[in-house]
Parts: sequence; structure tokens; C-alpha cells
Amino acid sequence: MKRLFLLTAAVMTAAVVLAQQALWGVPTMISPEVKADNTVTFRLDAPKASSVVVAGDFSPRGFELMTKDADGIWTYTTPASLAPELYSYTFYVDSLKVSDPNNVYKLRDVSTVSDIFIIGGQLADLYKVNDVPHGTVSKVWYPCSRTGNDRRMTVYTPAGYEKGDRRYPVLYLLHGMGGDENAWTELGRAAQILDNLIARGEAEPMIVVMTNGNVDMQAAPGETSAGLVAPTIQLPHTMDGTFEEAFPEVVEFVDRNYRTLPSKSARAIAGLSMGGYHSMHISKQYPDMFDYVGLFSAAIFPDKSKTSPVYADLEAKLKRQFDNAPALYWIAIGDKDFLYEANTEFRKVLDANGYPYTYYESPDGHIWKNWRIYLAKFVPQLFKRH
Amino acid sequence: MKRLFLLTAAVMTAAVVLAQQALWGVPTMISPEVKADNTVTFRLDAPKASSVVVAGDFSPRGFELMTKDADGIWTYTTPASLAPELYSYTFYVDSLKVSDPNNVYKLRDVSTVSDIFIIGGQLADLYKVNDVPHGTVSKVWYPCSRTGNDRRMTVYTPAGYEKGDRRYPVLYLLHGMGGDENAWTELGRAAQILDNLIARGEAEPMIVVMTNGNVDMQAAPGETSAGLVAPTIQLPHTMDGTFEEAFPEVVEFVDRNYRTLPSKSARAIAGLSMGGYHSMHISKQYPDMFDYVGLFSAAIFPDKSKTSPVYADLEAKLKRQFDNAPALYWIAIGDKDFLYEANTEFRKVLDANGYPYTYYESPDGHIWKNWRIYLAKFVPQLFKRH
Repeated sequence: MKRLFLLTAAVMTAAVVLAQQALWGVPTMISPEVKADNTVTFRLDAPKASSVVVAGDFSPRGFELMTKDADGIWTYTTPASLAPELYSYTFYVDSLKVSDPNNVYKLRDVSTVSDIFIIGGQLADLYKVNDVPHGTVSKVWYPCSRTGNDRRMTVYTPAGYEKGDRRYPVLYLLHGMGGDENAWTELGRAAQILDNLIARGEAEPMIVVMTNGNVDMQAAPGETSAGLVAPTIQLPHTMDGTFEEAFPEVVEFVDRNYRTLPSKSARAIAGLSMGGYHSMHISKQYPDMFDYVGLFSAAIFPDKSKTSPVYADLEAKLKRQFDNAPALYWIAIGDKDFLYEANTEFRKVLDANGYPYTYYESPDGHIWKNWRIYLAKFVPQLFKRH
Repeated sequence: MKRLFLLTAAVMTAAVVLAQQALWGVPTMISPEVKADNTVTFRLDAPKASSVVVAGDFSPRGFELMTKDADGIWTYTTPASLAPELYSYTFYVDSLKVSDPNNVYKLRDVSTVSDIFIIGGQLADLYKVNDVPHGTVSKVWYPCSRTGNDRRMTVYTPAGYEKGDRRYPVLYLLHGMGGDENAWTELGRAAQILDNLIARGEAEPMIVVMTNGNVDMQAAPGETSAGLVAPTIQLPHTMDGTFEEAFPEVVEFVDRNYRTLPSKSARAIAGLSMGGYHSMHISKQYPDMFDYVGLFSAAIFPDKSKTSPVYADLEAKLKRQFDNAPALYWIAIGDKDFLYEANTEFRKVLDANGYPYTYYESPDGHIWKNWRIYLAKFVPQLFKRH
């Protein structure tokens, strides 16, 4: 039996290979390096390059020039501490977009992959994974009679869901055009925001259901039989009423398969951009379904009343919705959002009719930074009535 | 009301911006392009580069030189059709590792991110998302008394699990050193392999539980309060007995929270490399727990009997396990694997004692290509007894 274990030192050394197939080298340096004072250093080993730029939302002007040392390492260090936030960046090496080879943390937004890092503190502490109980995140397929096939959703169930018989309220959380059922958990840090707010006692434990609002896609890019094709921004049928008409089936599926509180007072719907448009239309189309509505940088679009019966009779449907007004109708937008004016116009309509809503205005434009903030501000206001 | 919808053509044009924050441009060309004849063209727009190489497992020698056209676009087309497989690659631009900016499909293996594509056909059809019913994939946290904290596992429940009261057998599927609870679904395409084999009727519908075998990590890199730190290959306590000792708690958690068939005849355990080592030791430590055992390129390691009681008395424990022999004890390895000899020695021990097992030898070495093949070959053999 002993012979079995008389392996050579060579094999011991080879243990490092056991780590599977690290085919093409390992990181050679730390990049980005977030220091204790929240300054950040970016590094790239590119001795033959003539110019290297780091572009990202950490920079007020959107990019910074890096400098090369004698060893061919390019670096850039922020001149001051960065504010708490989830930041994304990429390198440009002689104009070629280069993903940081030393950073494995990347996020896809539509068809662009960026590197990310987090500066903690303030709201950004909600975006971090902290040492708190964690909910479960599931990728679930459900049948859709409108599209005639199975479609994919992301479902967050709060920590403790597995134990006991408790029933939970549900937030339906919708993405924007170009997004999919992964957008809120990846770019939006929804699971972290929920875990952290619930652990702090600042939000009710709740289920969060993140659908795919592009009815022409069964699921996120790469997750369907279309294969590994390049994602595109605009897809057919995103705003033709189909998604809204199919939505009651989603709610029925969730009520059937999860321990929900299946009533209006325990249901919220919110979405960003196109998802705000969907939330506005779904909540008025089914006025007895949602007591909490969130429009995040909502795409208040031109008249589509001829496209689908869902969009027709807007005035009458809003009146019906507000006859039994939602517990919360929350409108948030950035002061530089290209949809700012459209949202102002929409608020004027609500004001003129005396429909109650809450308004939250932030700096900046139509960006994920704002949608993470809006989610973090919206969730603590939910389910105060049930 | 009309005024609300009198938005300008400028806003209409801006619809493309609605697609969220496509901060840094969109893909400018198709790369990789998989053609109908299964040749593949790689493209990169890098006019200032002096040399561009595409490195990857599609190339017999591991890399190919690309050539530049008059517009500064570098291309390489494979001279012949590629065999069915999931391939990974990266570019090197003047020696700098450059992730393909036109391919959003990337996989992390330990600390390296590579671009991927799939050539369909034969076994590789199992790695694709096909138009079949899909199971649910969940990231679930469970309490571990040995480590004193919550740990994360990936759970696959087969299509149809949500409906009805049926109970299912369970495969516990373990990763290698450097891997984590995401490895089998990401690099291993486990959900696709299971979906497809079940849809074909070639495998029993089953639950698959993918744990994290690094007891010093609560979860995959980026999913713990350690933050977005660079992944490392070798962690403490991976092979000190703790994981094996804690394993019955995993099985109890799964039996309590899922509709399992909680008996030996409906349980399998398999793993790659370090996960094969874990599977070997767990299955003999708890001989009444698993009727199906799979050792994929298993790390049959030097004597660790002094490290933990789990590893002591190997001979006696193997005898006890094989006194009531598993329905299947399956050993698979590649003929170029650095662990080939160690596995040969282990098989000699089994042979000498008359312990029944099934052996599968493939070409190639210690690589994910083999582990996907082994999973695809192993799963159809499971749960024939229950």
C-alpha cells in the first residue's frame, strides 16, 4: 500500500498545476490597487506601447494618461481619495481597448465589458458583500403563453427563506433596454443591496424577481439556443405591449412557486429606463396588483397608444390607478438625464390631477451609479402597509 | 395630456442611449466568427501594433500569428474546420495579454480570464444551450459548524422540479484546487450538460450540488466580505480533512431543503483533481452515503494520514467501502495527465484487492476539456439502482 503514496517531489511541485488549467499565465502585479486612503493605482505591463490611457468613471474628465517607468510598467494613481462608489474602467493601449489582465472582476453592460472596483463607505457599503446573512439568487425558467416558450428570470429569496414557513412580499425589478435578467444582480448589485439593507433592519425581508423585458429574448445573451452571439441594444417587441400583457403570468408563477404574500399591499414593481416605462404601464394596466411603484430614470416615451391596447387610454387608466392610490409612487431621475424633461412633463400631469407621488432627484445622468442609489433608497420604503 | 408626449426627434434618436451606460464604445467587428464550415476567424483592430498573436487551445501549437491588413485589422483564420469543443483563447498584442474586445463571452479560471467560443456537434452539443427544458441554477448559503460561518454552494434542480412532489437523486460535484462553487457551471458547463442529457432521456433527472472545497473561502472570489481581491491558487485547509469532515452537514442541508431521495442508492459524489481526492476520501469515510463515485483526474496524493483522521486507515476504510461495493466506482484520467501514474498505482491497489471499478482513459491532460467529457460520460451511468 505504501508504494501508492511514494510520489516524487516533482509531483508535489506540480500541485500548483492542480489548480486546473491556468492556461495563459497569472497576474504579475496588483491592479487596481485600492489603498487605505482610497486613492487607487492602476498598473499595466506594456513596455512596447507608446501611449496608455485609463478610461473610467473615477475620472472627472473620463480618462487619465498613464506614465511608463524604466521597466515598461505604466501606472496612474488618483491624485485624491475616490468617493465611495462602484467604479468601472478600461485601458486603451495605443487606442486599443484592453481589459485589465490583472483584474478578474469584470462586468458586461450590453456589449461592452469593463473592469470594476469598489470604494467602500456610505451607500457603497451596500454594494459590497459584507459579513451578513445572504439570500439565495436563482436563475429560473418559467413558461410564457404570450411568447409560447420558456423564459428566464432571476429570483432573490432573502436569508432565512429556506427555514420555516414565513411568507414574503415581492419586489418585481425590471431592467432597461439592452439589459436582461442578469442586469440588476450584476451591474445593479441588487443581491448585495438587499442582503445589507435587510441585515441592518432597514428593509423588510422580501423576494425580488428580475425578469427579462425583451420578449424577443428568452434569456440573457449566451443563455439561449441562439448561442454565443454578440449582444445588441435594441430588440423587437420591447415596447409593443407584449411584456406588459404577459406580466400577470409572471406574478402567478411567482405566487405559485414561492412563499409569497399574494396581495397588492405586498407587491412592488420598479424599473430603470425602459423598465420604468414597463413599471408605469404595468402598474396602471393592473391597478389592483402593485401598491408600490418605482420609476427610475423612466423612459416616458412618445405616444404609443396605437401600438398596443396596453398603452391606450392612459389618462383613464392613471385615474383608475390613483382612485385607489398606490402606497408609494416613487419617481427618481438624475438632473443630467436626457429623460429629465420627459419626467418633468409626466410629473406635471400627476400634479395637475392631484395624484400623489414622491420625487427624488440626484446628480448625474442615465447611469448605473444612479440606479444603484435609487434601489438603495426605494427598498427601505417598501411594504410599510401590509 | 398631449403635451406630455410631444417629445422631440432628438429624444427619439437618443433611444439608443436608453440602453444604459455603454460607456466605452460598442463592438466594431465580429470576433470570433464561427463559420458554417466550422473554420473560425479572429479579428482585432490594432493598427499601431507590431505583432499580434492569438493563443488558445484551438491551435495545435498553442498560438498563431495574425496578419495585418491595410486598415490595421489583424486577422487569423483557422486553416481547417475545428473539432466540436468549447475553446478558449486570448490575444497577445506586442506581448501584452489582450482580452478580445469584441467578445463578451469570457470565463475565469483561477486568476486568468479567457475568451470562449463553442464549435457544436458530438459531445460539444451537450455544452450548448439548446432549446430544451432548463433546470434552475441557484447560489445558496448554508451554515457550516466546522468553519463556524455560512458557505456558498451552487445547486442545480432539473426542469420540472418546481412542479409536483417528485423526489430526486443527488449528484455532489466537486471542483479542483483553485476552483470554487462556480467552476462546474461556468468552466464545466454542468447545467447545460445536465439539461441536455436529461432532455435526451440519457440521464435521470437529478439535483446537482456544487460545493466550495476550499474551507478557508466562504465562497468564490468576489462573493465574500474579503472584497474584490485577486484569486489565488493554493489556500489553507483544502486538504486537511476539514472539508471531508464537514460533508455530512452538506448532505443533511440538501436533504432538508430539497425534495431528495435521501438514500445511498440515490446519491453520487464526483470531483475533478482535488475534488477527486475529496470524493475518494468522503466516499470511503462515509461508506453508507454514496452508491456512485467518480474520480476525474483525481489527485491521488502523498500520504496525509497524519494530517487528519479522515486520511488515516485508508486500507481498512477502502475495505469497508468495498465490502458493500458502490454501484459504480468510476476512474477517469487523460493519458497526458501528470497524475496518470498516481492513478495507475491507485488502480493497482483496487485490482489487488478485487475492488470493482470502471476505468475511462481519454487523450490529453489535466484540462477542463477532459472534465466536461468525464461529466458527460459519468452522468448517464448514475442512479440505475434506485
